Amino acid sequence: MGNSVKQLAILGSTGSIGQQTLDIVRTFPDRFRVVALAAGYNLNLLARQVEEFKPSFISHQGKQSISTQDTQSIQAEDIACLKEVDIVVIALSGDAGLKPTLAAVRAGKRIALANKESLVAAGNIITADAKNYGASIVPVDSEHSAIWQCLAGETSRPERLILTASGGPFLHHSPSQLSNVTPEQALNHPSWKMGRKVTVDSATLMNKGLEIIEAHWLFDITFEKITILVHPQSIIHSMVEFADGVVKAQLGYPDMRLPIQYALSYPQRLSNSNIPKLDFSKIKELTFEEPDYNTFPCLRLAIEAVRKGGTYPAVLSASDEVAVNLFLNRRIGFNDIARLVELTLTKHKSLSKPSLEEVLTAAAWARESARQIALGDSR
Amino acid sequence: MGNSVKQLAILGSTGSIGQQTLDIVRTFPDRFRVVALAAGYNLNLLARQVEEFKPSFISHQGKQSISTQDTQSIQAEDIACLKEVDIVVIALSGDAGLKPTLAAVRAGKRIALANKESLVAAGNIITADAKNYGASIVPVDSEHSAIWQCLAGETSRPERLILTASGGPFLHHSPSQLSNVTPEQALNHPSWKMGRKVTVDSATLMNKGLEIIEAHWLFDITFEKITILVHPQSIIHSMVEFADGVVKAQLGYPDMRLPIQYALSYPQRLSNSNIPKLDFSKIKELTFEEPDYNTFPCLRLAIEAVRKGGTYPAVLSASDEVAVNLFLNRRIGFNDIARLVELTLTKHKSLSKPSLEEVLTAAAWARESARQIALGDSR
Repeated sequence: MGNSVKQLAILGSTGSIGQQTLDIVRTFPDRFRVVALAAGYNLNLLARQVEEFKPSFISHQGKQSISTQDTQSIQAEDIACLKEVDIVVIALSGDAGLKPTLAAVRAGKRIALANKESLVAAGNIITADAKNYGASIVPVDSEHSAIWQCLAGETSRPERLILTASGGPFLHHSPSQLSNVTPEQALNHPSWKMGRKVTVDSATLMNKGLEIIEAHWLFDITFEKITILVHPQSIIHSMVEFADGVVKAQLGYPDMRLPIQYALSYPQRLSNSNIPKLDFSKIKELTFEEPDYNTFPCLRLAIEAVRKGGTYPAVLSASDEVAVNLFLNRRIGFNDIARLVELTLTKHKSLSKPSLEEVLTAAAWARESARQIALGDSR
Repeated sequence: MGNSVKQLAILGSTGSIGQQTLDIVRTFPDRFRVVALAAGYNLNLLARQVEEFKPSFISHQGKQSISTQDTQSIQAEDIACLKEVDIVVIALSGDAGLKPTLAAVRAGKRIALANKESLVAAGNIITADAKNYGASIVPVDSEHSAIWQCLAGETSRPERLILTASGGPFLHHSPSQLSNVTPEQALNHPSWKMGRKVTVDSATLMNKGLEIIEAHWLFDITFEKITILVHPQSIIHSMVEFADGVVKAQLGYPDMRLPIQYALSYPQRLSNSNIPKLDFSKIKELTFEEPDYNTFPCLRLAIEAVRKGGTYPAVLSASDEVAVNLFLNRRIGFNDIARLVELTLTKHKSLSKPSLEEVLTAAAWARESARQIALGDSR
């Protein structure tokens, strides 16, 4: 095998980002090899992935064994720090991403990070450890990938990061219209194919709030210099403004395989005929508008959480995860997601400069509190 | 004087780009110092510039002397290769830029090049000499500055350059509407403040054709990979598409001082409160359309000239310069500009891989032929 083949561990291989990562590997078999896959309970899909990609190691949370002669079952955290792995793809959703991300960081890996919740909850710890252990974190989120690409070759610090937002499926809805929307409507994103959690977060704009916090840590920039711009076409994936007023933008067809592929191939760019190219003669126009902070209070809640710091962002993220699940299970309404997160934040007593243990404790408290508030369940 | 002060020679200091370059020097007196100024016949303005910026050397074509005790008059070509000069700004219009550009190239200077005609006529010679003499050519044209900035930090060759065009003052006009437009209308550019020649070239789209040829030489890319996209707001100054389909764009307020300043300050970016910043909440939309090759045949003529190569581009540029002057002097109509260039090109017998002498001879022939065709003057 040539030096140019990069060996991958993919955590969350059966989710949306995981499957799209494997699609990239399938397209470039000479460049990428799957060494390890980790999944949750979707053993049918994992078994098919094992058959196709023949990883040396797998990890899952199901009870059945799907190990083969060539594939050994190990712990998820061990997957993140295998010696033979060049790039660890963290494609897990929600708080579950935190521990494997830290394990990969402490193993000094290059990490393709699709899990924003880990940076939201413990950005101070992850970025400090990445420096100490020589790990590099490469964004997979399309917005952060765009910013990363716009910063390439620049010697000056950015003046402002402009995170674009599609506005989600409920752009221009009123709060009263939102009170009756269904999970099916929330999951019907106008431009991006993504997992369920992030798709609902896109509908509430919580996703954009989490992205502010993610960008703050990834690019070491104060959140006051990060602005949100609604751009319904999702063609400009984000922009950076520099000291002279110049703005650089990264554009592309809205397809998650584009940032995933770049996170794997960086600094090279690979031609992939499966991903459509932009055709400006068909695009006609790109539009912009300010986000509606009143109708989508999650964005404001996220900004408040990062402003206050401490364990507030971890509580924001954990309570949101519970709220989104309750909404998807039809236990609460769409507008209740923000209400539940806000009530949980209000009840929280934050710690400043929290340790990992304190972050995990705060997140666990937030999950339990959010459930109690929503369901009146006081176990 | 600290190491960080860059010493400038500005050729064409009384023109639009020259004056805007001096505005940058005025804003950053600790970073730039004017060592030399060269102008044509506008001695009143040059004298005021000498008084304000106190250059050590000047050059002009007027008969009167405006030298002072501290300011010595020398030849224009000597201005381009003064030992104490760090950056030579070529802000001359038309064919007059060729010889000074070559002089600066052969002195191994860093050249901020605002004169596209020199690259159009003799791109092969200029780029080969720049390599041999260790000169670096930095674009001042907003489109090429944008492309240069989008290429920063990229390891892969670009797949496509997308030059944006405002469309000029006559966007969506029909050929018959164009037959009666006046020089005043042609000089009324909707978004950019520029010199007279380039403003009329923007109205005919010849400017965009010349820019294709300029980009071809500056970025060593075949002209088939350069496309023109009409973008009336002039906010996106140009874009680059890479192998993976990602497009990077550089955006900014349409103010020539922005690319001029970056050509001088590169790789740094300087905050300049005189240049407005973009405000996306006010921009609302960016639109795109294909150029109209039938109504604006100059664009097609330029593409044909670069496709054929040899001395055709020099003839294109020289005959266009004559035609624009005749139009500005009300000797020919607007649509005659393209007709005159086309007739001159048709009459031309091109040489392949021309020397500098052959380029200059072809350009002189083109100027004379264009005048003869237009005015029936057969001196």
